[in-house]
Amino acid sequence: MTTDEAVGQRIDAALDVPSGSPARMDTPRPGDPRLARLSLNQKTVDGWSLREAVDGCVAAGLPAIGTWREPVAEVGVETAARWIRDAGLRVSSVCRGGFFTGAGDLSRSERHDDNRRALDEAATLGAPCLVLVPGGLPAGDRDLRAARDRAAAAVEALVPHALEVGVRLAIEPMHPIFAADRGVVSTLAQALDIAEPLPAEAVGVVVDTFHVWWEPGVEDQIARAGGRIASYQVCEWITPLPPDALLSRGMMGDGHIDFAHLTSLVTAAGYTGDVEVEIFNADVWAAPGRDVVETLARRYVELVEPHL
Amino acid sequence: MTTDEAVGQRIDAALDVPSGSPARMDTPRPGDPRLARLSLNQKTVDGWSLREAVDGCVAAGLPAIGTWREPVAEVGVETAARWIRDAGLRVSSVCRGGFFTGAGDLSRSERHDDNRRALDEAATLGAPCLVLVPGGLPAGDRDLRAARDRAAAAVEALVPHALEVGVRLAIEPMHPIFAADRGVVSTLAQALDIAEPLPAEAVGVVVDTFHVWWEPGVEDQIARAGGRIASYQVCEWITPLPPDALLSRGMMGDGHIDFAHLTSLVTAAGYTGDVEVEIFNADVWAAPGRDVVETLARRYVELVEPHL
Repeated sequence: MTTDEAVGQRIDAALDVPSGSPARMDTPRPGDPRLARLSLNQKTVDGWSLREAVDGCVAAGLPAIGTWREPVAEVGVETAARWIRDAGLRVSSVCRGGFFTGAGDLSRSERHDDNRRALDEAATLGAPCLVLVPGGLPAGDRDLRAARDRAAAAVEALVPHALEVGVRLAIEPMHPIFAADRGVVSTLAQALDIAEPLPAEAVGVVVDTFHVWWEPGVEDQIARAGGRIASYQVCEWITPLPPDALLSRGMMGDGHIDFAHLTSLVTAAGYTGDVEVEIFNADVWAAPGRDVVETLARRYVELVEPHL
Repeated sequence: MTTDEAVGQRIDAALDVPSGSPARMDTPRPGDPRLARLSLNQKTVDGWSLREAVDGCVAAGLPAIGTWREPVAEVGVETAARWIRDAGLRVSSVCRGGFFTGAGDLSRSERHDDNRRALDEAATLGAPCLVLVPGGLPAGDRDLRAARDRAAAAVEALVPHALEVGVRLAIEPMHPIFAADRGVVSTLAQALDIAEPLPAEAVGVVVDTFHVWWEPGVEDQIARAGGRIASYQVCEWITPLPPDALLSRGMMGDGHIDFAHLTSLVTAAGYTGDVEVEIFNADVWAAPGRDVVETLARRYVELVEPHL
């Protein structure tokens, strides 16, 4: 290698974010068939507006986006739907409904109505599912079982509207680190216990690697889920855990999760939908959006896509 | 109320640590029968030496102490045993053995030998059980199932020595927040799956409220545990979670755990042993040890003891 080539290689070599380590493969280019099921959850590029996220997906060759209600509301759901459609993108999911347990500001009937509106918005966006974050314990309330029962009842109450608008309710079991303040449904097994008595076309579950990777017997539960898997989301469990538990997710490959194993299980269960990358992490958010999307595309092609 | 009385009350009123809120009851005094099963895990007063912890238990009227190997080794296990015996205390448990999964510096056979020594030390101290922290994933190893299998096999290998010295192996299921780096046994159900094929006099489980409070079906699992409960430990799940996950435990009553519910279940399962308070928390460790012991005694008498 000549000196010029060495210098050129150093200059051109992409760096992964937020690790700063050299990229382990070339960045897949738009049109690469390996990107055919990759979706950008827009929270992963928290600094981008919806417009920037749509353009970023197009520029990187990602065919789908997972939207959040708040940035969609900023431009209006009709406008958002048109932007996404005109860009040739799919909406893989809408985040988020739920918060069923009474921990927030809204009454139960206000929350129900808000979730109905979220289903309507998802329908307008053409999303197959609405992700449901169950909610945590109300202040001073220590009755976890009762909160779990309220979450199950609230999902059931939304079934008729979900069927009417053709959007699936996707219950997201959340890592037990969030059981007190965000999601009282703590395992895939528990989410399936809630979903199974309800119509499969109306109620499914989210398999998010961050939330379920540790679950004993997750192999059996993913097989049990089968057609109930409404969304497959990938991000990483990293250590040491970042100081803010809510921002503790990492870039795939930077931590402890066996993506080959979990992805193979999801594939074997029959899932054929999009794969969303959803990362809440201060270091990821501090990196340029384009670098984030390029890194996650590389890591997805390396660690996830071969097992779909 | 006269001004003098008001001043006197303000001066005399105890404050709980680390919350700083006024104590909700008088501090129980030595000889109070409600303290008859309360044990101080010495890690709760991390700034105290073993000698100070023993004296602190006596001063506060606590009849038992949970010891850690490192501070015991500093004075020698024979000396430690004599101090504790001469003070009239029981040892409720010894922390800790385990680390079976190959994540540390020791080889598997070195770790086995170290765990045998830990059992010997526990026997010298008269402790009924040795708490086993299963260990996390070795660096770069993402095979969680294999690590769990190694932990189960390592427990089984210790059974003959546990029977020989008369100390029970107490498998501690750990909150999934620690699944990657500390404890691959994540639920009470999983700990019981490991324990049940082995002799009950040799292998039990730890029920620690911090680790199991969120577990779906924990009611059934505690009932299933029955006589397998080798240790009942109490501390709190607080939010927001402190920045260092390892120090994220709180003082009972400052968070989200229903101690009445869990304690009633442990009682119904037939547990009659000591109840250890084990809190790793920077704010607790920064408070004077005497204030910590007095606060935990009050909170225990208020929240736990009525349900034993």
